[in-house]
Amino acid sequence: MTSENINAAHELAGNYIACWNETDGARRRVLLAQHWTPEATYVDPLMQGAGLAAIDALMAAVFERFPGHSFTLKDGAEAHHGRLRFSWSLGPNDHPGAAPVVEGTDFAELDEAGRFVAVTGFLDKVNLP
Amino acid sequence: MTSENINAAHELAGNYIACWNETDGARRRVLLAQHWTPEATYVDPLMQGAGLAAIDALMAAVFERFPGHSFTLKDGAEAHHGRLRFSWSLGPNDHPGAAPVVEGTDFAELDEAGRFVAVTGFLDKVNLP
Repeated sequence: MTSENINAAHELAGNYIACWNETDGARRRVLLAQHWTPEATYVDPLMQGAGLAAIDALMAAVFERFPGHSFTLKDGAEAHHGRLRFSWSLGPNDHPGAAPVVEGTDFAELDEAGRFVAVTGFLDKVNLP
Repeated sequence: MTSENINAAHELAGNYIACWNETDGARRRVLLAQHWTPEATYVDPLMQGAGLAAIDALMAAVFERFPGHSFTLKDGAEAHHGRLRFSWSLGPNDHPGAAPVVEGTDFAELDEAGRFVAVTGFLDKVNLP
């Protein structure tokens, strides 16, 4: 990839992570409307949803399950042909050096505007306290 | 995942790797017909194809580009909801300990029989000689 492509992939994945990290429901729904299509779908080994209200509810459930935690995008996001792949970790905000509780890799399909159409999540490591 | 799921994911990904490693065209086309749907699609940053004849040609092109090399499936294949994610390396057959020339992660959609319907490949590392 060119460095331009790498930056674009990292920015797209950053938009996604920003949604998952927005604990304020009203602000999160603004981000969702901006970065996902209305009929977007999400599925991972533990949960799934279709449409922004359902995806918003999934995100809210993660905040309830892991208060004081947030997602960090790892290096290595890659995009081509409207598909995006990136890896992330979920760890405690107040212990930035602590081992993540969950790490994963997500695969996404994007529309021409760079909005998320379909996301499939995979879990690379689960290290629950 | 349960160990049963892990084994199933590893076996599905193994079917895929076996196709890429079959240098005999006739035998490869038998494997393709067995493990992919007729209208299957493949796309990675460098090449794409739709239908088994096109995918067969992509595989043949890789053998021409990297004679004496083969693909190895890494641990960590994961499957859920008809989707599969796995990582692989491509390295020389006669130097099993040598650094791979390419490493990647592929994402696939499967039909109910476990046949590959759509594959998107991503490159994790490229270390061409």
